[in-house]
Amino acid sequence: MPFAHRHLLGLEGISRDELGFLLDTAESFKEISERDIKKVPTLRGKTVVSLFYEASTRTRASFEIAAKRMSADFISLSSSTSSATKGETLLDTARNLAAMRPDAIILRHAASGAPHFLAARVDCPIINAGDGAHEHPTQALLDALTIRERKGRIDGLTVAIVGDILHSRVARSNIFALRTLGATVRFIGPPTLLPPELQAWGETTSNLHEGVRDADVIMMLRLQLERQGKNFFPTVDEYARYFCLTQRALAGAKPDVIILHPGPMNRGVEIASDVADGPYSVIMHQVTNGIAVRMAVLYLLVNRPKADSGIDAEAPSATAPAPRLQRRVG
Amino acid sequence: MPFAHRHLLGLEGISRDELGFLLDTAESFKEISERDIKKVPTLRGKTVVSLFYEASTRTRASFEIAAKRMSADFISLSSSTSSATKGETLLDTARNLAAMRPDAIILRHAASGAPHFLAARVDCPIINAGDGAHEHPTQALLDALTIRERKGRIDGLTVAIVGDILHSRVARSNIFALRTLGATVRFIGPPTLLPPELQAWGETTSNLHEGVRDADVIMMLRLQLERQGKNFFPTVDEYARYFCLTQRALAGAKPDVIILHPGPMNRGVEIASDVADGPYSVIMHQVTNGIAVRMAVLYLLVNRPKADSGIDAEAPSATAPAPRLQRRVG
Amino acid sequence: MPFAHRHLLGLEGISRDELGFLLDTAESFKEISERDIKKVPTLRGKTVVSLFYEASTRTRASFEIAAKRMSADFISLSSSTSSATKGETLLDTARNLAAMRPDAIILRHAASGAPHFLAARVDCPIINAGDGAHEHPTQALLDALTIRERKGRIDGLTVAIVGDILHSRVARSNIFALRTLGATVRFIGPPTLLPPELQAWGETTSNLHEGVRDADVIMMLRLQLERQGKNFFPTVDEYARYFCLTQRALAGAKPDVIILHPGPMNRGVEIASDVADGPYSVIMHQVTNGIAVRMAVLYLLVNRPKADSGIDAEAPSATAPAPRLQRRVG
Repeated sequence: MPFAHRHLLGLEGISRDELGFLLDTAESFKEISERDIKKVPTLRGKTVVSLFYEASTRTRASFEIAAKRMSADFISLSSSTSSATKGETLLDTARNLAAMRPDAIILRHAASGAPHFLAARVDCPIINAGDGAHEHPTQALLDALTIRERKGRIDGLTVAIVGDILHSRVARSNIFALRTLGATVRFIGPPTLLPPELQAWGETTSNLHEGVRDADVIMMLRLQLERQGKNFFPTVDEYARYFCLTQRALAGAKPDVIILHPGPMNRGVEIASDVADGPYSVIMHQVTNGIAVRMAVLYLLVNRPKADSGIDAEAPSATAPAPRLQRRVG
Repeated sequence: MPFAHRHLLGLEGISRDELGFLLDTAESFKEISERDIKKVPTLRGKTVVSLFYEASTRTRASFEIAAKRMSADFISLSSSTSSATKGETLLDTARNLAAMRPDAIILRHAASGAPHFLAARVDCPIINAGDGAHEHPTQALLDALTIRERKGRIDGLTVAIVGDILHSRVARSNIFALRTLGATVRFIGPPTLLPPELQAWGETTSNLHEGVRDADVIMMLRLQLERQGKNFFPTVDEYARYFCLTQRALAGAKPDVIILHPGPMNRGVEIASDVADGPYSVIMHQVTNGIAVRMAVLYLLVNRPKADSGIDAEAPSATAPAPRLQRRVG
Repeated sequence: MPFAHRHLLGLEGISRDELGFLLDTAESFKEISERDIKKVPTLRGKTVVSLFYEASTRTRASFEIAAKRMSADFISLSSSTSSATKGETLLDTARNLAAMRPDAIILRHAASGAPHFLAARVDCPIINAGDGAHEHPTQALLDALTIRERKGRIDGLTVAIVGDILHSRVARSNIFALRTLGATVRFIGPPTLLPPELQAWGETTSNLHEGVRDADVIMMLRLQLERQGKNFFPTVDEYARYFCLTQRALAGAKPDVIILHPGPMNRGVEIASDVADGPYSVIMHQVTNGIAVRMAVLYLLVNRPKADSGIDAEAPSATAPAPRLQRRVG
């Protein structure tokens, strides 16, 4: 099968063929959400658990709708109602859930690497729904699906990524996917938010007009307002003056440029309202595609044959040897 | 079809025939919840999203049970777990949800008019589950169903509404529904909670005994205790002394009077415990009828033919022109 | 039928035959969660409501998964999103839910006796998911199922229960079940956490090594860290020095001893990590069995014939006479 992974932890290392297959699968699921009866029996009798340690509307709702449209049972756990408040470790919480025989655990966590840590220790497919500043693979997949749909291809396109690249898991996952699929990426932001390592992946600039010149795609990032005054940028107003995507800033981009934003948007900060709602914006299409991408990911991971059950060999090995869950008095 | 609206934003302006049709439809759904297998396939493959920005047990649970008994998928979002904590606007949150292709969005919001605002801008049926001090249409429908069921009619009845009329969305929706259906309404409360405009709709008095005299129906409102000391009434004790519905206060009402309360009750404040649990109370019947009313509303809005898709023409036009969601690069 | 109760309030007074029947039923449901399609239609069209006034991951998730694998609709309510924040009494909340015609209400509450209180007043099966320091019957049932599965029997076994017996609802339910099923129980903990009444049920000691000697089963309890400094024990470190189950402390137990813990664990406090993850631990099996036990409980209570509907006669009578819900104007 063209996608032979047990987990979806990130897009780093996922091959061009695998990405293409994921996007094709997602595309084939799109029409389900346009039907009058938006439901297929594909995942009936499967249990999907979401475990979110950070607030979320769209990602959790998108996974839940995707799962339910495929007839899976969906159980939603968040940190505010969970045993995390009783001081249980993430690993113990995940092991407990895994002992309830779910078919996938969808994890959002503030710690980079949290899903990789679990994948190496828990006998259940793990889907990363955002881990710290590391990766957010389903977001990048829905971005890629949207670009491919609108442009007919990704290979050869120029994608300008604008904003807080340093802290963005969305940017990181997109860099891996877009470069693998043949796009050229550029980075635009204040120097403090453009780490030097980025230059290995693409050009960097702090000039928005220059950065979007001849771009096929502009990918805006959400500015995390709580970073204000922490030496990354002085004030939100000053950030907006230089990096807000306005009609004027768009002038140098290609005439058929498309604009993406992962949401939630800070209107008037990183993107002007008339641009967000304007003719170049494909932001709502991204959200619609998110359902299809998550249906595809659930379909590919949950329906995978069980031959390789047990702790995952492909996950990074732990510092401490992974405890075997079955090693017990028989 | 006798109910030709795309949304349920309020009961103001809903005609007598439409109200009758809504109540008839609800009545026909009642028996489903009395079956051994309480489930019909009517809304299979439909997605219903609730978006609650205020705390709720009964309304949200009632909608969820109603949706599930009709086999719809139900996704529940509340402000505490949502992107609202990231500062996203209500409109952006709703647009994002709408892009996931739900068949209805049920909104509770502290701002009067919030559901009307969305209905004019989002391509999805909106159901108002309470907006500020404005309307709570499904509550008034379940009240009307309960009254009609108990009294055989609404036309010609005298309904005494008691309490904080000024701030009550329950009272407002009931005023529209009951008057349209031919009832006479009266208002009882401290003068500070009886705005002068009420006199256009019915008699007002601050004397509870006088107000309930010869009433067929007494509709108690919940006292919002947090208003104490804000110039509306001095103390809860004093409020209770004059406006608590006790056995004694009931004396002048009709011998077959029925008593409604939307809950949650402040026992001993607006209603005495022996009255709430006594022979005239139909409060639990209201709750049971709430399921049937919400099944009816979901059925009528979700199953509506899609011919009129797109932004709703009947909703009040916005100050700014409503942005078209489809106006994008093709 | 061998289990003729309308509610599951606790295990006190449940007979040996009834316990055996519950465990047999649970055992028969285990294989469903090992299937590829983990779903049976047994409870289709049934409505199960969980009402949790205390934080929980595993118990709520376990009930939810159990209900959904039997095709029931599951509605989850917690105090943070409920009308409890509006000051509604537990009884009014439960009556309101009951008026929505659920087939069972699962209650977790900080007050001992809360589910018994409701069972006497609300026309719906009540399942106790933990009430204060009183009982947690499904936990003790899953513990018993795990012990029986591993040991082939419970009769004649020696079970050492270690920790904060005084405050543990898990310990109380286990004492009732295990003694009824023929096991000998022993209690180990600091003297302040071993109330004198315990001696009626089994030996007590504050010496861990002595207490686990020749034990077939060691049942660890969670230390509620917030009790530190409240005269029960001086510091967590000192507690751990004397009562943490380490490899060394295990030395005197039987060579085929099994170790249980209800979770969430305080690793390094009441149980050493290498013991929790070691060969004697059956902690993850407990969690897996929790699904089967809750499927059995839901199955037996929800599918019960309705002949005995109305307020429950077996529940302890209330101080005030139970108000009849149906006594209303007809």
